This record gives sequence, C-alpha cells and structure tokens, in this order.
Amino acid sequence: MHPKEHQVGFMRAVALAACFFALTAAWSLSSKAQTRPPAAPTWSPSGQLERPADYREWVYLTSGLGMTYGPAQVTAGQHQMFDNVFVTPAAYREFLASGTWPDKTMFILEMRDAQTNVSINSGGQTQGGVMGIEASVKDRARFPNGGWAYFSFDGPQGLVPSTAPLPTTARCYSCHQTNTAVDNTFVQFYPTLFEVAKRLGTIKPTYDPTHRP
Amino acid sequence: MHPKEHQVGFMRAVALAACFFALTAAWSLSSKAQTRPPAAPTWSPSGQLERPADYREWVYLTSGLGMTYGPAQVTAGQHQMFDNVFVTPAAYREFLASGTWPDKTMFILEMRDAQTNVSINSGGQTQGGVMGIEASVKDRARFPNGGWAYFSFDGPQGLVPSTAPLPTTARCYSCHQTNTAVDNTFVQFYPTLFEVAKRLGTIKPTYDPTHRP
Repeated sequence: MHPKEHQVGFMRAVALAACFFALTAAWSLSSKAQTRPPAAPTWSPSGQLERPADYREWVYLTSGLGMTYGPAQVTAGQHQMFDNVFVTPAAYREFLASGTWPDKTMFILEMRDAQTNVSINSGGQTQGGVMGIEASVKDRARFPNGGWAYFSFDGPQGLVPSTAPLPTTARCYSCHQTNTAVDNTFVQFYPTLFEVAKRLGTIKPTYDPTHRP
Repeated sequence: MHPKEHQVGFMRAVALAACFFALTAAWSLSSKAQTRPPAAPTWSPSGQLERPADYREWVYLTSGLGMTYGPAQVTAGQHQMFDNVFVTPAAYREFLASGTWPDKTMFILEMRDAQTNVSINSGGQTQGGVMGIEASVKDRARFPNGGWAYFSFDGPQGLVPSTAPLPTTARCYSCHQTNTAVDNTFVQFYPTLFEVAKRLGTIKPTYDPTHRP
C-alpha cells in the first residue's frame, strides 16, 4: 500500500471515531432531555393505570376549595377540601401551542384536607394531608369510546399503587362530556389555559358558562 | 499538488464538516436541556429582579385561601383571595435531597381572585384573575444581610416587568425570619416539603408551631 493510502485510511478512521463520539453525545443528551420529566401515563402488566410518584412536579393548573356540583350538594357544616389539578408537562406545552390536548394527556386531581389556624395563619385555610387522588387519561386507542377514561386511586386502606378505569357508567364520564369547555376537560376552571383556549378558538361551541347540571 | 494530496485535503474537509455538524447538534441539544426550565432568578441591567414569564411551569408547593396573619387581621366580609406558591425546579429537587434551599432559590407567591358560582361549581370557590405577584430570592452574595430578599411586582397600573427589593424594614423580612420552619421559608405550609424537612431534620430548633405573632 502506498503511504498516502495509509494516511487516507487513518484519517478516515479518525473522522469516523470523532463523529461516532459526537453523535453518541448528541443522542445521550437528547435522551436525557426527553426523559425528564418522565413520560406518563404508565400501565401495569395487567393494564391498570399506575399512580405516578412525581405528579407534584407536573404542571399545576388550579386549586378550588369546597367545590360541589349540582343542586343536590350541600356544603354547610361539611368539612371542606382543597382540590389541586396537575397535568403532564408535555401535554401542557402542546395546549399552550394549540389549545387542544394530545393523546396520552394525563390529569391528576389531588384532594387535600383544608385546615385552619395552622402556625401563624389566623384566618383562612391552608392545605393538610392527602384525602384522595383521581386521574383522567386521554388515549384514543385504549379508550375508543370517547377517548378519555377516569380513575380513582382511593382504596379501603388508603391510596392504591394502580387501578383500573372506573366503569363508563360512573357519573364522571357523562359530566365531563356535557359540562366541559374544551375536549372533556374543565378548562373553564384553569385560568391560564382558559385564556389560551379563548385566544386559539378551541372552546366547544356547546359550552355554556351559565349551564347548571 | 499530487492527486492523493487533493484526496486527503477533501477527506479532511468532509471529516471536519461532519464533526462540526455533529458537535453543533450535541451543543444545541445540551443547551436546550439546560435552558428548559430556564434558570431563575434573572436581573435587569440596573439590578432589578425580572418577573419570570414561566413561573406557572415551576414546581407548585401549595395554595391557601384567605390567609391572614396576626390578631389585628379581620376577614369577615372581606373579599378572599387564593395564594399559590411556586418554586424554581432546581431548588425543589435540592430540597427533596437535603431539606435545605440552595443559593439562587426563588419563590413566586401568586394571588388570585376567589370566585363563586363559576360554571357548574355550585358551592365552594374557584380561581379567577391574578390580583398580585410577589417573590423571594435567596442570594447570599447579593443580599449579605440574611441571604434573602422580598419583592412585589404590583405597580399602580398592574404588574411591572421588574422590581427592586422591598426595603429591609418591610414586615416580610422580620416575619420570615421569626415565624418560618426552615431557613426563612414557610415550609410548615408546604405539606410535601414539611414531611421532607421533618425526615431530614432541617426544621429550625426555634420553630414553634403554636407561636402567633
């Protein structure tokens, strides 16, 4: 072999090695960017929705206190609860851009005890322990009848690690279909996203803010 | 020039171009991973704290409704507000690991109008528009006297884009120093982090849950 050919072969090897290293670095960084925050929802081998450990790091949408729906509900004298709503970060970013929820969107509704006179708070209410965790998931392939399913992680001995969807006869299915502002979700209660939906024109034509069930 | 030398020169150029492309991609992905979520706090050229555009994507800590402090406060008949607390994600992860706040920790306290009878909510209260935004920042070099400073983004015509620290004579400084469970922060009101601080033993020995100012 001519010495020049050796030189060409050597340079070819150096170039390939350098590019392999650079591309590996790019791939590794790309994977890291994609896996934080972790993808949700996740499912158990038997097809149950797993309770996410990190939902408090998802994007917060709103809180209510003592929310009740419908004329039959009475709150006087009842102990009140805060409800905090979180959504998967990737779905949130998609909603900011399009005003719609992508497939695999997942919400967590966390109920917490409302407490009074904690530390220096002499008026009003602050949040205590978890009283319940519910979820909704959009997955058109898994839930072809409407695309959404609803879940409760409440069990007889506290929270369960995974759960099957509530039966489609549960009240949440019809209530979310009938009373929501955007695609089965109560965006009318999420002040920042309600503005986005108004601006992008994605509020359902059937949404009536004065409607009471 | 010998034809072989042309070939070597051409391959060298191809190798350099390929590696430049790959390294640029790696650098771009690396920057993207680091800037999402963006680092906070940021300061204007004149040293004012800039109001973060994306604090709703920080980590949510808690909400209260109608919180008041001290015996002189009266809430009866007053319109109530929700307060939502957010913290920079990197500081949150550090707190989970150590029970303490690193330098450059930043909190946002967002006040929102408490509304009744919105859509199908027939009892309780839901969140409306922003009524005020406040912040606190830990920065030992910038604020050597105690390490923390407090800010209000409320201006006469609404929210301002940046603001100087409140004077150290403002009530927030002494209140945060005297009544907080962990390092000038009201961790006693952040249920998930209060558990972390208890477990890691970082609650101040002077913290008295029964103390009223």
